[in-house]
Amino acid sequence: MFEKEYDVIVVGGGHAGAEAVAAAANMGSKSLLITMNLQTIGQMSCNPAMGGIAKGQIVREIDALGGYSGIVSDRSAIQFKMLNKSKGPAMWSPRSQNDRMRFAEEWRLLLEGTPNVDFYQEMVTGLLVKGDEVVGVRTSLGLDIRAKSVVLTNGTFLNGLIHIGEKQFGGGRAGEKAATGITEQLVDLGFDSGRMKTGTPPRVDGRSLDYSKMIPQPGDPDPEKFSYLDTPVLKQQRDCHMTHTSKVVHDILREGFDRSPMFNGRIKSIGPRYCPSIEDKINRFSEKDSHQIFVEPEGWNTVEVYVNGFSTSLPEDVQYKALKIVKGFENVKFFRPGYAIEYDYFPPTQLRHTLETKIIKNLYFAGQINGTTGYEEAASQGLIAGINAHLKINGQEPFTLKRDEAYIGVLIDDLITKGTEEPYRMFTSRAEYRTLLRQDNADLRLTPKGYAIGLASEERMRKMEEKERKSKDFVKFFKLTSYNPEDMNQILEEVDSAPVKQADKMFKVFSRPKVRMDHMLQLKEVSEYVKSNEINREVMEQAEIQVKYSGYIEKEKSNADKLQRLENIRIPDNFDYSKLKSLSYEAREKLNSIRPVTISQASRISGVSPSDISVLLVFLGR
Amino acid sequence: MFEKEYDVIVVGGGHAGAEAVAAAANMGSKSLLITMNLQTIGQMSCNPAMGGIAKGQIVREIDALGGYSGIVSDRSAIQFKMLNKSKGPAMWSPRSQNDRMRFAEEWRLLLEGTPNVDFYQEMVTGLLVKGDEVVGVRTSLGLDIRAKSVVLTNGTFLNGLIHIGEKQFGGGRAGEKAATGITEQLVDLGFDSGRMKTGTPPRVDGRSLDYSKMIPQPGDPDPEKFSYLDTPVLKQQRDCHMTHTSKVVHDILREGFDRSPMFNGRIKSIGPRYCPSIEDKINRFSEKDSHQIFVEPEGWNTVEVYVNGFSTSLPEDVQYKALKIVKGFENVKFFRPGYAIEYDYFPPTQLRHTLETKIIKNLYFAGQINGTTGYEEAASQGLIAGINAHLKINGQEPFTLKRDEAYIGVLIDDLITKGTEEPYRMFTSRAEYRTLLRQDNADLRLTPKGYAIGLASEERMRKMEEKERKSKDFVKFFKLTSYNPEDMNQILEEVDSAPVKQADKMFKVFSRPKVRMDHMLQLKEVSEYVKSNEINREVMEQAEIQVKYSGYIEKEKSNADKLQRLENIRIPDNFDYSKLKSLSYEAREKLNSIRPVTISQASRISGVSPSDISVLLVFLGR
Repeated sequence: MFEKEYDVIVVGGGHAGAEAVAAAANMGSKSLLITMNLQTIGQMSCNPAMGGIAKGQIVREIDALGGYSGIVSDRSAIQFKMLNKSKGPAMWSPRSQNDRMRFAEEWRLLLEGTPNVDFYQEMVTGLLVKGDEVVGVRTSLGLDIRAKSVVLTNGTFLNGLIHIGEKQFGGGRAGEKAATGITEQLVDLGFDSGRMKTGTPPRVDGRSLDYSKMIPQPGDPDPEKFSYLDTPVLKQQRDCHMTHTSKVVHDILREGFDRSPMFNGRIKSIGPRYCPSIEDKINRFSEKDSHQIFVEPEGWNTVEVYVNGFSTSLPEDVQYKALKIVKGFENVKFFRPGYAIEYDYFPPTQLRHTLETKIIKNLYFAGQINGTTGYEEAASQGLIAGINAHLKINGQEPFTLKRDEAYIGVLIDDLITKGTEEPYRMFTSRAEYRTLLRQDNADLRLTPKGYAIGLASEERMRKMEEKERKSKDFVKFFKLTSYNPEDMNQILEEVDSAPVKQADKMFKVFSRPKVRMDHMLQLKEVSEYVKSNEINREVMEQAEIQVKYSGYIEKEKSNADKLQRLENIRIPDNFDYSKLKSLSYEAREKLNSIRPVTISQASRISGVSPSDISVLLVFLGR
Repeated sequence: MFEKEYDVIVVGGGHAGAEAVAAAANMGSKSLLITMNLQTIGQMSCNPAMGGIAKGQIVREIDALGGYSGIVSDRSAIQFKMLNKSKGPAMWSPRSQNDRMRFAEEWRLLLEGTPNVDFYQEMVTGLLVKGDEVVGVRTSLGLDIRAKSVVLTNGTFLNGLIHIGEKQFGGGRAGEKAATGITEQLVDLGFDSGRMKTGTPPRVDGRSLDYSKMIPQPGDPDPEKFSYLDTPVLKQQRDCHMTHTSKVVHDILREGFDRSPMFNGRIKSIGPRYCPSIEDKINRFSEKDSHQIFVEPEGWNTVEVYVNGFSTSLPEDVQYKALKIVKGFENVKFFRPGYAIEYDYFPPTQLRHTLETKIIKNLYFAGQINGTTGYEEAASQGLIAGINAHLKINGQEPFTLKRDEAYIGVLIDDLITKGTEEPYRMFTSRAEYRTLLRQDNADLRLTPKGYAIGLASEERMRKMEEKERKSKDFVKFFKLTSYNPEDMNQILEEVDSAPVKQADKMFKVFSRPKVRMDHMLQLKEVSEYVKSNEINREVMEQAEIQVKYSGYIEKEKSNADKLQRLENIRIPDNFDYSKLKSLSYEAREKLNSIRPVTISQASRISGVSPSDISVLLVFLGR
C-alpha cells in the first residue's frame, strides 16, 4: 500500500511534523506523513498566535532556511505586531495572531503541494527496529511501513491524560484520542522517558464578552510579516483585548485549590514555568492581586475567543465562577473549559545535535516529545530533524546550527547538552549572542546555509543576496556621503540633538541614538538614493541597524569567534571518560551520558567545571 | 456555567444537529449545541456531495422551510448538476459536489451568526429525566445542563465500532472517539435499541491517479443551486471522474472475503441496501463484472479524493490490491482505507410524527439514530425535531408534513409508521405523490408553512410569492395570447412537430412535448413579455412545468385529496386496540405499538389489512 521503503516517515502532523516532512521532501526524500487525523494537520492546539519574544526570531529563522511556518503564519494572520520595538533590534520580536482554521488549512494545502509528501491517516503504535536501527513504523491496524529513517513528533499525544478538577480522561487534545504503544517500546529499547504537563485556558463565546470594558490591543499600524518571500501583508487586522484578574477572582480560584489536580498531588509532572496556569501564578506570586488576561480572537469570522493568561485545570465550575468576575467577562459563556494534560517525553540528552537518537540510528525526535513547549520550538526541531534525516540517508554531512548562528542552535544545544526538567521555552536571555541572532538578519545568517543543503530556494537566495548587497551599499553610501550642515541641523533640531558645525560624512550623525532613518530620509541626497536604488523597507531597516549597532555587533562577533576555538576542539565519538580519573566523578558521569562533540559543548554541561575542561584540554593535547 | 435552563439542547453537531439547533434558535428558543468536538461541526463524514435523486428535493425542502443545508451547500459547492434532466420534472434532482472543509466552516459560521445558539464541547453521557420527561443532559465531566427539551442526533457515534478486515476498534468516525452511556440509559428507560452498519470508501491521493484513463464528469454548463435565497451560483467548477471495476478487481476482492467482517459474521447488523459496500455488490450481483466508480474531489484545492462506489471493510491490503487494478488507479496512494462502522440506533416506531419519543416527553431523536442514512435525511429530521421542540415548549401546535406535501413528510411517516430494519434512504419511488413533490416547487409547497411558524424569513416569503404570482401570470399569458401561425410553424418545423393551420392560443402548442420554453422564447410576444415582466429562470421553469404537466399534477392532487379523507379521521390518543377483538391479532399488536394518529397512517402499517381498517372505521363511527 505504501512505497516499498520511504526515505523518511514523519509521525505526527503538528508544527514539528509538518516542518519535518516538508524539509525532507523538499530536499528530495520520498516522505510519508502519518497522523491520527489528516483533518488536524497544522492544528494550533493552544493559542492562535505565532512568534513573540525569541519565538518570532525562530519563525524568521525557519523561514530563512526554507521552512514553511513563516509562510503559513503570514497567509493566516489576522494581526501582526513587532514586539519590543522600543528596545534595541536584538529584542525586536515579530508576532502574529492567526485564524486557527485558516492556519491548519494553509499547512495542509502547502504540504499537499509539496512533491514527495505522501499522507496516511492512522495511529502509529510502534517502531520497526532492526538491531540498533529503525527501519519503519507499525500502525494500529498492524501495517508495517518501511523507511530509512523515522521522525517522531508525537506532541502531547503519548499516553496523554487530560485533567479538569478531579476528573481525568485519556486524550491527546480536547476531543481527540491519545496515542499509545510507542513509549513502552522505546523504554524497552533503553530510552529514559518522563512525564510533563502543559495546560490550556477556556475557549469562550466572544458574543458574551463586553469589550468596552477592556483595553483594545491593535496590531501595528504598518504591519510587517514573517516570511522573507512575497507573502501577503495585512491590510486589515483584528484587535485583541486586554483585561485583568483581581483579588476577588483570585479568592474564588483559591476556593477550588483543594480540588485542583495541581495541588492535590494528582498531577506530578512539571508544567511550563513561563506559561503557568492561573492557579500557579496565584500560588507563586501571592503578593500580586492582578494578572493580565489577553483576549485573542480565534479567526477572522469566528466568535470563538482564546483567554490567554487563564490557563487552568481547576474544576470547570471554579473556572467559570472566577472568570465571570473578570472585567468584561460578566456574562461569559464557555465553549469549553481549560484543562491540563500530562504526556510522555524523552529527556533530550538522549539526542545528537541532529536530533537523531543516540541509541537507535536513523530515529529522530522533534517537538514536545523532547520536553519543549511552544509551536516555534517544535517547528524548528521538526525542520532540523527533517533536514538531517534526509542528509544522513544520503551520506551527507549533518546540518547543525551553532549558538552564535541561530536561536535554533541555542535551542537544540541547550536541549541535548543540559536536558530539561520542565517544558523548555525559548527566551532571548538563553542566547549569549542575541545581538547577532536578530529577526532582521535571519535570512543573512541562514539562507546561504539553507540554500547550500538544497532546502532554501533559488528565489530565496537571490532575494537575500540582493538585500545583503543593497544594505551594504547603503551603509557605504552613509559612510561616503557628506551632508549639508544646514539641512542636517534642521533635522537635529527637530530631534533635539546637538547641531553639527561643519559638513561631514552622514554615518557619524546617523549613529546618534536620536537620529533615525525617517529623519535621514528628509535629506534630499538620501531620499534620492533610496529612490534610484529601489531601497525597500527591509533594506532600510538592515542598513540602519548596521549603522547604529555595528559596534555591538562586531564585539559580539569577536567574542563568538574566540569561543569558537573551543567549539573547534572536537572530542572523539567513543571517548571513554571513565578512564580519566582526574575528572570529577559527576563530570565523568555526565560526560559519558551526554557525550558532547566539542570541548565547548562539554563546558556547557551542568556539573562539568572549568577544571574538568582543563583536564580534557590537556588530555586532548591542547 | 450555562443558562439556568435552556429551551432546547441539541446533542451532536452533524447535519441533523446543526439543522435542529438552527431551527429552534431561529424560532426564538434559547438553544445549546453540545458536541464532542466543536471543530467538527457540519462534517461531511462520507462523500463530499449534497443532494442527488430524491435527496436533492429534500435539500430544497429544507431550504424552503428556512433551514440552512441549502445555503451551506451552495456556499461550499465546487460542482452542481441537475440529475435526470431528460426525464419529467418530478425526477429532476439537484446535486452538488462540495469542498469538505468549506462546508464545515460555513456551517460553523452560520451557526455562530445565529442568535440564541450557544456552543459547548463535551461528550454527553446521559439524560436528566424526571418521571417521563427529559429535563436536561449530563456530560462526561458530570455537568448537568438543564433544558425544557433535548434533541439527540448522535449519528454513528453511539457505541461506534469500526471494522477493517479482522480488526475492530471503537470510534465514531475514523480518528474520532465513540460516545458511550446514552444507549444504556435509554434502554433502561424502556427504549428498544438495535445496531446498524454503514461504511465508507478509501480516501486517496489525487496526485497518484491517472485521470486521462477515466471519463470526466463535469458539472452542468449553466449550473443552478439549492437555495431559493440569493446564494452564489458557481462560475467555475471542478470535474468528477468515472471509472469502473472489472472481473480481475472482483476476483482480488473475493480473495479477502474470508477475512471480511461482513462475511465472517463479525458484523451482524444490516447496512444500507442502496449504498452497499463493493464486496456486497460483488456478492449480491455476482453476474456483473463491472461496477461504476465515481471519483470525487474533496475540495477546491485539496488533492484528497473520495472513491465513491468502493465502500468497503475488507482488509486494507485487499482494498489496495484491488483498487490498483482499477483503470486510472494503477499508482494509487491511500490517505486512509475504507471501513465499516456499527452503531446503535433506536427503531423509529418509538417516535411521533414530530420526532418526539413516545416514552419520554420533550425528548427528540433525529438523523442516523433513527436508522436512516444520508446527510439530507438526517438534516431534514433535525429541522423537524428542532421546530417541534420549540413549538411544544411554547404550547403551540405540532408541525408535521403530510406525504403529499413533502419528501420530508414521506420520510418521517415511513420511519415512524413502518420502522426500518436497514438504514433508510429516500427514493422518489417512496413518494406516492412525487409529481407534486418536485424540486422546483418546494418553496411554493413549504415556504408559507415555514413562514407561518416563524422560521422562514420575510424575504423568503416575499420571493416565493413573487415567483408564484409571476409564474401564474406567465401561464395565463400563454393561455390568453395567440401566436402568428407563420412564426409558430417556423419553430415547429425546427423541432419536427406538426405545423399549425391557423392562429390559436399559445398554451396548446406549448403543451406539445417537443416544444420547450427555449423555442417559445423565439416568439417576439413571449420574449417581450419576459423582458417587460422581468421573468427569471426559475419563473420560466415553473411556468413551463405548469403548462406541460398540469394534467398529471391535477390528477395527483385529486388522488391525494381523496386519500386525505382518511387522513382526516383521527384516532384518539389512548385508543385501546386490544379491546377490538375483531381486529387481527397482528393488527392489534402493531397498532398498539405504533399508535397511528389517523386511519390513513394505520393503513400504512405493515400487518394492518384493509379489513382491519374497515373494523376501525366502523368502530370510529364512519
